[in-house]
Amino acid sequence: MSYFQRHIFFCLNQRENGEASCAQHDAQAGFEHCKSRVKQLGLAGKDGVRVNKAGCLDRCAGGPVAVVYPDAVWYTYVDQSDIDEIVESHLKNGQVVERLVLPDNVGR
Amino acid sequence: MSYFQRHIFFCLNQRENGEASCAQHDAQAGFEHCKSRVKQLGLAGKDGVRVNKAGCLDRCAGGPVAVVYPDAVWYTYVDQSDIDEIVESHLKNGQVVERLVLPDNVGR
Repeated sequence: MSYFQRHIFFCLNQRENGEASCAQHDAQAGFEHCKSRVKQLGLAGKDGVRVNKAGCLDRCAGGPVAVVYPDAVWYTYVDQSDIDEIVESHLKNGQVVERLVLPDNVGR
Repeated sequence: MSYFQRHIFFCLNQRENGEASCAQHDAQAGFEHCKSRVKQLGLAGKDGVRVNKAGCLDRCAGGPVAVVYPDAVWYTYVDQSDIDEIVESHLKNGQVVERLVLPDNVGR
C-alpha cells in the first residue's frame, strides 16, 4: 500500500534561458490552490493525499504540468477550476479527469 | 503505461526553523549522484527513469528520503553507495533494496 493514497507533484520549474517552463504559467498558484483545497476537504496526510512541489518534470511543452502517483496520470491545467476538478474528481474520488490528461507524445 | 517507467523524487527541503530537514543530510549530493549515474547508464528519459527534485515529502523523521513511483517505494539513504544500489537494483532492474526501505511508521 502506498504511504500516500495519491501523491500529486506540481512542476514549479523556472527557466532563465527563454525556454518554456511551468513557472511562466503561474504553476505556483496552481500548487497553492491545490494544497489549500486538499486541506480544506480534509484529504491531506498519510493514507490520504499529498500535494508536493517538484522541480522540472521534463514535459515542459505541456506546461504547466502535474503528475498523480501511484496512478501515473499526468495533467495540464489552465486555471483554478481545473485544479478544483482534479481535486474533487481524481484526488478525492479516484476518477481521472480525461479532458485535462497530458497526451503521451508531449515531452520537453 | 507510465510515461517514465520509474520516477524517483528526492526531497531537497531546507528548513530554517531548526526542525529536521533532508537538506541537512546532504540530499542535494544524493540527488546529483543519482541523476549522474542514471544518465551514465543510459536509463534516463521517456519509458525509462526520471530523477527529480522535490520539495518536502513530509517524512522528515526518516531523512534524507526519496520515493520511487509508480512503485510507491520509499527509501532512506546515507551515502553514494546506497544511491548506487538503488540505481542498479531498483531503477535499472526493478528489485527493491529492502535494507534501505523507509518503515511505514516514519512520518514527519
